[in-house]
Amino acid sequence: MSRFLSKEAERLAPYTPGEQPQDAQYVKLNTNESPFPPSPRVLKALSRAELLKLNLYSDPTCAALNSAIARRYELQPENVITGNGSDELLAFAFRAFCGQGKGVAYADITYGFYKSQAAFFGLDATVIPLREDFTLNVDDYMDFPGTIFIANPNAPTGMAVPRADIQRLLEADPDRVVIVDEAYVDFGAESCVPMIYRYDNLLVMQTMSKSRSLAGGRVGFALGSAELIAALNRVKYSFNPYNVNRLSIIAGAAAVEDEPYFQACTGAIQNNRAWTVRELEALGFTVLPSQANFIFAKSDRIPGGELYRKLKENGILVRWFDADRVRDYVRVTIGSLEQMAALVDEAARLLEEV
Amino acid sequence: MSRFLSKEAERLAPYTPGEQPQDAQYVKLNTNESPFPPSPRVLKALSRAELLKLNLYSDPTCAALNSAIARRYELQPENVITGNGSDELLAFAFRAFCGQGKGVAYADITYGFYKSQAAFFGLDATVIPLREDFTLNVDDYMDFPGTIFIANPNAPTGMAVPRADIQRLLEADPDRVVIVDEAYVDFGAESCVPMIYRYDNLLVMQTMSKSRSLAGGRVGFALGSAELIAALNRVKYSFNPYNVNRLSIIAGAAAVEDEPYFQACTGAIQNNRAWTVRELEALGFTVLPSQANFIFAKSDRIPGGELYRKLKENGILVRWFDADRVRDYVRVTIGSLEQMAALVDEAARLLEEV
Repeated sequence: MSRFLSKEAERLAPYTPGEQPQDAQYVKLNTNESPFPPSPRVLKALSRAELLKLNLYSDPTCAALNSAIARRYELQPENVITGNGSDELLAFAFRAFCGQGKGVAYADITYGFYKSQAAFFGLDATVIPLREDFTLNVDDYMDFPGTIFIANPNAPTGMAVPRADIQRLLEADPDRVVIVDEAYVDFGAESCVPMIYRYDNLLVMQTMSKSRSLAGGRVGFALGSAELIAALNRVKYSFNPYNVNRLSIIAGAAAVEDEPYFQACTGAIQNNRAWTVRELEALGFTVLPSQANFIFAKSDRIPGGELYRKLKENGILVRWFDADRVRDYVRVTIGSLEQMAALVDEAARLLEEV
Repeated sequence: MSRFLSKEAERLAPYTPGEQPQDAQYVKLNTNESPFPPSPRVLKALSRAELLKLNLYSDPTCAALNSAIARRYELQPENVITGNGSDELLAFAFRAFCGQGKGVAYADITYGFYKSQAAFFGLDATVIPLREDFTLNVDDYMDFPGTIFIANPNAPTGMAVPRADIQRLLEADPDRVVIVDEAYVDFGAESCVPMIYRYDNLLVMQTMSKSRSLAGGRVGFALGSAELIAALNRVKYSFNPYNVNRLSIIAGAAAVEDEPYFQACTGAIQNNRAWTVRELEALGFTVLPSQANFIFAKSDRIPGGELYRKLKENGILVRWFDADRVRDYVRVTIGSLEQMAALVDEAARLLEEV
């Protein structure tokens, strides 16, 4: 370690993002992006006139974007905060709601970034294993006295917790904040947003990276009681007040206002997912029941790591986690039907070889 | 305070950014933006083809942008990290280089955000007063055993420390990191960048918000030894790996490659600054010797707060800090000659009234 590093920085647990090759040579199914370009409204909104204003700071309150999001989700702007991707807002939530005397819990198999961010703030997290079948049972969290992070649907399994279960968690301890990370909720799972006015301890995280085709724009948002949102703003103004840039504010607002495009894109992903699952099951794969824009699949005939490597050699990028309980699986983003057909063809060919 | 807040979040010291009215009714000289639009190269680079790729994540390594910056400053890409504005990188530096046993020092009168970020990480900062004439004397830092942040030129004074003084600090303790925040260096001050290969404990922060007309794009960068940059990347990958969005990567690279535009813009600001200083001095103002794109000025005939309010009533926005030692002054961004003429006219009119 460098002699310059603080003790706190030595103890960090940096996250390894999925491969992002900058040439376009792969069928890229490894980082859960949308295969569709952003809404035509986004392209129109990012006008030359707006580009000419890049010399001026963005609005630190993100008023136009927060209002657009509030309208879409039938909330007030005071119930919304936007971030430089939901990763940033997750970090703000760790700082706002966890610390000395306020522990944090999350699942053993879930979004790997929670661990990195807990380490960023020097928190000792309580890791609660998923059940044997990869379900998250909220009963396992009922007595936990600190803040809870639940990815719903979960990653990389794609499996969702019913809203009624989250409700039980919220009611069991009204002083405990429950953060429901709904990055993947728009592909068929039940959102907790309708419960926001009822439970002031519920914070819902969403992102425009998946269902709104803006991964490259970095727009995440959190929805919750005015009290929770004020707490997150307190953190934001201590870290980076101008956290969302001008063009992302504009793009995000235009994206969230284009409901028909959103419905068309998320509908297509669900269709393509159903097709892919059927085809892979026909090839003998076990596929966990996904409500996300990815699936988690394994074959008894080829180990996960080998499948990942061979697919990559043949131009198809999926994600493999070399970790306990999941190393038999690969995570496959649901892309266009053409991309999924390429995946299925290649998987079939590889299985013939083994 | 909210019952949900962590103790750590209660102790935060959120920063108050300058006013950002979202209508264009003011001559806006309060947040040190460039009065010039971004380089024509930036507009060209933000093409429709690039907008169509917003569904894909940005490159977490920011390779294209870091390479462009490295070329401009005659460094290697391993000497560069980019951030979501330099505010984010300053925070990363606080986490990387300060903590238990590694204190932090900065001036009493300097960029207010250092205090917010020190609080974000729960650090007890050592605040070292500027001398009576607002100069920062590095002798006052010589024996400080922790990490040092120096804004150079300083804000809101605009006054600069000679490179040779920073060099003495670097040499006095090779195990101590010195962070030189050069947000405003491009308007006439001496940059420490030429010393990077010589001192591995030197980190230089810069931003494209001022001299490169990209405040709305949020592009900051840090330059330093590969060891310091690796430490910052360790923090970045623990906080937000995709911290710079696609369009800002593109815009930043195009901006840094347009040297003639940069020279033209920064030259114009220096001319306009000289003119404004002469005019204000002719009106009896005291103006600190600024090497930044703003000036810090006071009149014995009108208190700073009153001058700020009256200018605002008359459509001119400047910044006033209601704080010890500086409340007699206003900080005025150097904009276009037309904007500065409007300021000088209005200041003259107000002085006639008192």
